[in-house]
Amino acid sequence: MQTVHDRRLTAPKPLRKGALRITPLGGLGEIGRNMTVFEHAGRLLVVDCGVLFPEDHQPGVDVIIPDFASIKDRLHDIEAIVLTHGHEDHIGGVPYLLRDRPDIPVIGSELTLAFVSAKLTEHKIVPKTVRVEAGDTHTAGPFGLEFVAVNHSIPDGLAVAVRTSAGLVLVTGDFKMDQFPLDDRLTDLPHFARLGDEGVDLFLVDSTNAEVPGFTMSERDLAPAIDQVFATAPGRIIVSSFASHVHRIQQILDSAHAAGRKVGFVGRSMVRNMGIAKDLGYLKVPDGLLVEASALDKLPAGRVTLVCTGSQGEPMAALSRMANGDHQIRLAEGDTVLLASSLIPGNETAIYGVINKLTERGARVVHKGNAKVHVSGHASAGELTYCYRIVRPRNVMPYHGESKHLHANGALAVAAGVPDENVLVVRDGVSVDLERGKATIVGAVPADMVYVEGGVVGRATEETLRDRRMLRDGGVLTVLALVDPATNRLAEPLEFIARGALIDDQALEAANREVEKALAALPAGNRSEAADLDETVRRAVMRGLRRRTAREPVVVALVMDA
Amino acid sequence: MQTVHDRRLTAPKPLRKGALRITPLGGLGEIGRNMTVFEHAGRLLVVDCGVLFPEDHQPGVDVIIPDFASIKDRLHDIEAIVLTHGHEDHIGGVPYLLRDRPDIPVIGSELTLAFVSAKLTEHKIVPKTVRVEAGDTHTAGPFGLEFVAVNHSIPDGLAVAVRTSAGLVLVTGDFKMDQFPLDDRLTDLPHFARLGDEGVDLFLVDSTNAEVPGFTMSERDLAPAIDQVFATAPGRIIVSSFASHVHRIQQILDSAHAAGRKVGFVGRSMVRNMGIAKDLGYLKVPDGLLVEASALDKLPAGRVTLVCTGSQGEPMAALSRMANGDHQIRLAEGDTVLLASSLIPGNETAIYGVINKLTERGARVVHKGNAKVHVSGHASAGELTYCYRIVRPRNVMPYHGESKHLHANGALAVAAGVPDENVLVVRDGVSVDLERGKATIVGAVPADMVYVEGGVVGRATEETLRDRRMLRDGGVLTVLALVDPATNRLAEPLEFIARGALIDDQALEAANREVEKALAALPAGNRSEAADLDETVRRAVMRGLRRRTAREPVVVALVMDA
Repeated sequence: MQTVHDRRLTAPKPLRKGALRITPLGGLGEIGRNMTVFEHAGRLLVVDCGVLFPEDHQPGVDVIIPDFASIKDRLHDIEAIVLTHGHEDHIGGVPYLLRDRPDIPVIGSELTLAFVSAKLTEHKIVPKTVRVEAGDTHTAGPFGLEFVAVNHSIPDGLAVAVRTSAGLVLVTGDFKMDQFPLDDRLTDLPHFARLGDEGVDLFLVDSTNAEVPGFTMSERDLAPAIDQVFATAPGRIIVSSFASHVHRIQQILDSAHAAGRKVGFVGRSMVRNMGIAKDLGYLKVPDGLLVEASALDKLPAGRVTLVCTGSQGEPMAALSRMANGDHQIRLAEGDTVLLASSLIPGNETAIYGVINKLTERGARVVHKGNAKVHVSGHASAGELTYCYRIVRPRNVMPYHGESKHLHANGALAVAAGVPDENVLVVRDGVSVDLERGKATIVGAVPADMVYVEGGVVGRATEETLRDRRMLRDGGVLTVLALVDPATNRLAEPLEFIARGALIDDQALEAANREVEKALAALPAGNRSEAADLDETVRRAVMRGLRRRTAREPVVVALVMDA
Repeated sequence: MQTVHDRRLTAPKPLRKGALRITPLGGLGEIGRNMTVFEHAGRLLVVDCGVLFPEDHQPGVDVIIPDFASIKDRLHDIEAIVLTHGHEDHIGGVPYLLRDRPDIPVIGSELTLAFVSAKLTEHKIVPKTVRVEAGDTHTAGPFGLEFVAVNHSIPDGLAVAVRTSAGLVLVTGDFKMDQFPLDDRLTDLPHFARLGDEGVDLFLVDSTNAEVPGFTMSERDLAPAIDQVFATAPGRIIVSSFASHVHRIQQILDSAHAAGRKVGFVGRSMVRNMGIAKDLGYLKVPDGLLVEASALDKLPAGRVTLVCTGSQGEPMAALSRMANGDHQIRLAEGDTVLLASSLIPGNETAIYGVINKLTERGARVVHKGNAKVHVSGHASAGELTYCYRIVRPRNVMPYHGESKHLHANGALAVAAGVPDENVLVVRDGVSVDLERGKATIVGAVPADMVYVEGGVVGRATEETLRDRRMLRDGGVLTVLALVDPATNRLAEPLEFIARGALIDDQALEAANREVEKALAALPAGNRSEAADLDETVRRAVMRGLRRRTAREPVVVALVMDA
């Protein structure tokens, strides 16, 4: 495999005439913020532009978007943004790209465009959209596009084939190969095969489940476990799932209908998305099934179903608030909570916390840990192998995954007959040139984490997060030093205010001594600038605390003339 | 089931003569800090005294111990501490209990006592130990003890039967029912059955895996996958596991020996524990197999095995440091890393992060997600059912688990024939009295989280952690206000220092205005105390920032006379 490991790469040279450059700006090295830039004949094509949700070491951040630095001076070269499907990790970054050039055409399927348009409305952007469907072709400058139906955990997903004079690239988007999907819309393997017959020069393949052996179960296989919940629940049923998982919600509606229950949607994004899906016909709702959540109060518990957000333990979502007892819906003994959702790595503690609290309120909690109520939206190793055999690509670039997923997917490609040296396992920012059927790593562009907080892009930096991590572990110690400007001596002992920091008197005394020493060492009559003096005192305090506290606090020092 | 849910319970009345009171001080509501207090005839018996490792919402804390408040005035009533096995979550709290009364007898098996003694040595405590083995009986005041062999992920585990005139209580400790354990030491079900024949009045049962259907695989079933790693690894093999998992390490040694490799231990706790296990004969080491880690450098890569700590992604452990490239052992292409360990909930992000970094260094990583290299140390639902059928207890109190595990275990007991009303699902601090064969919830004592940080118990409080969580999410804003004492007006604009906080000028100006307003509202000539003035300014700043920042920072205010 062509790998980069921790090699430092320099900026790629300008693209050779006739060649195609592929640069992922997100989604290679993380599950999220998917974005891939294609360059050919001086023009650019963007495929997906999503967000990544922060991890523990990125506190306070709302979302992370791809780094647009390498294209920010070339926004007018962008022919279009192609969106493969409507999930946040594929569309969530679009508003931040369109901010700077709102008239970039956005190409996608009906539901995808409906979801991204609703999102853009919140950002007061009216996008220029181009609706396509599976089987369509479309030309965007030098890029010939062809769309292929794929099956995923949201309806109306598309893979996209990008044709240029440099060759044919097939991009799967997120996909699985459910052979019995609820909407009977299969991943179009005959279409993949035809593209393979034509000759796929480079294949970008979803790696999310490449480490998972075997095959992903069908969405339809969940029906028995879901029906079982509806058949046995003595009281209300509260279902939590992703607000975009139309198929899963469909199953819930069907089961609720069969069980003679009514359904109410709870939570802004759930209400909005299901409204869109229903209006467009992706969600089929039997007459009279849906009622306003507020009207459910008047029904006997055994006829009530609530469908809400919060399946990932998000603290402000409906489910967490029910678990904490601060939602208008009060849980009670006899209620059943069904978490018909995945457990995204990193959310375990939050989700288990919610499950425990629900249990303590007397609710029975059914979740993927104790019942078959979730299947993944991604192809596992088994399906991926078939995919490689059907497409027979010349070159493969696993995408959408952390390093371990990308490597696992690369190994699958090799096992399925792709020559080892034609499999490129790279990371965000690495540019790959396709020329005469050969894909080569040619350099790398910046692909930093770009943090969005309170709607502001990039104000939170790595330094902000480093400070927050230190504050989290060790708290803060504020120090006020009153210095006699004549003598450079402390006029009185330092004043300390600690928040979240555990510092005993001994350490504070040592800090005091160090500050006195540092001040005494300053050249008399030659006092440095105020800011430097703050820094001198801050460093002296830190020296004093060293090895006298279990955790190093952030020290903030203020110096005043006495 | 008798449950407490979120009921408020008051302190139990003094124990009736002849009755037995059981009060769990830890382990019911969390996986860790296991401790159960038995009271009878005015005397106490403690079973286990462990630590709990902190979660994300408890930043900076080293470990959490049980709350000794309810027994701190009765330390001299304690007849003994019984330790069921040598894991941290069962022995880690012992030093903090013995600090206040070092001569409490500590009863346990040979390996358990060796592990706890090594730990106590670090705390400069020489315990008074009583060594027992499976089948032994021992009398501790009014408590008759009988020990039963149980199988777990550390050797030499014991269940304990506690006999008093109030009845017979059987406490499983952590256990599983591996029918082919490496050391051939089975959980002694015939002994459980004999106790059942006698009549077990109350059964305290490990709930960790009560939600897991079916049966836990045998430790021996891992051999093929481990052997496969040793058969195919082209270079060095680095194995990471728990430093106490003697059986797992035994498998690694056996496989390494068969493959003609040498083994070096890396990491303080790994070296220490394996030394103890070897000296006592629990770890069987073929002659010449072990070498100093430093000597492995001289061997060809294909003959090297390193066994190290860090399987949970702990940032300071050997494996994380190798992943980050700041360990003397530098990983390279061709190395294989084997994580022969569990994935404790809450550690996923850290572990996956380490796996990704190892992958990026070119190492192949084998872990429980892609190979059968780990089995749990706890009995699953299947085994627990057998256990209930064999013991036939009158009353059951699931222990060792979060709420969801305790409820699941309670449901298993009911399914296995224990009368519903005789199953008590309680939480830490809840006292249960056993009298004439009947177990009843009688109240609750304090069972707060007690935080240990830098060896100091209880200095970190809930307030400390609340501050740290706020600091983590929103950073800190330090404000210096120079106030003219004559006029109560700001002598100059506020001085601000922000760390980890994102605050724009508009918000700072609003803060300034609010402070001016607050100062102007103070009664003239009647200035409050300095500390109150700090608080007045702090609150005014917070009012100014409100709704003008994405995250509320911690505000520290200092007021000085101008």
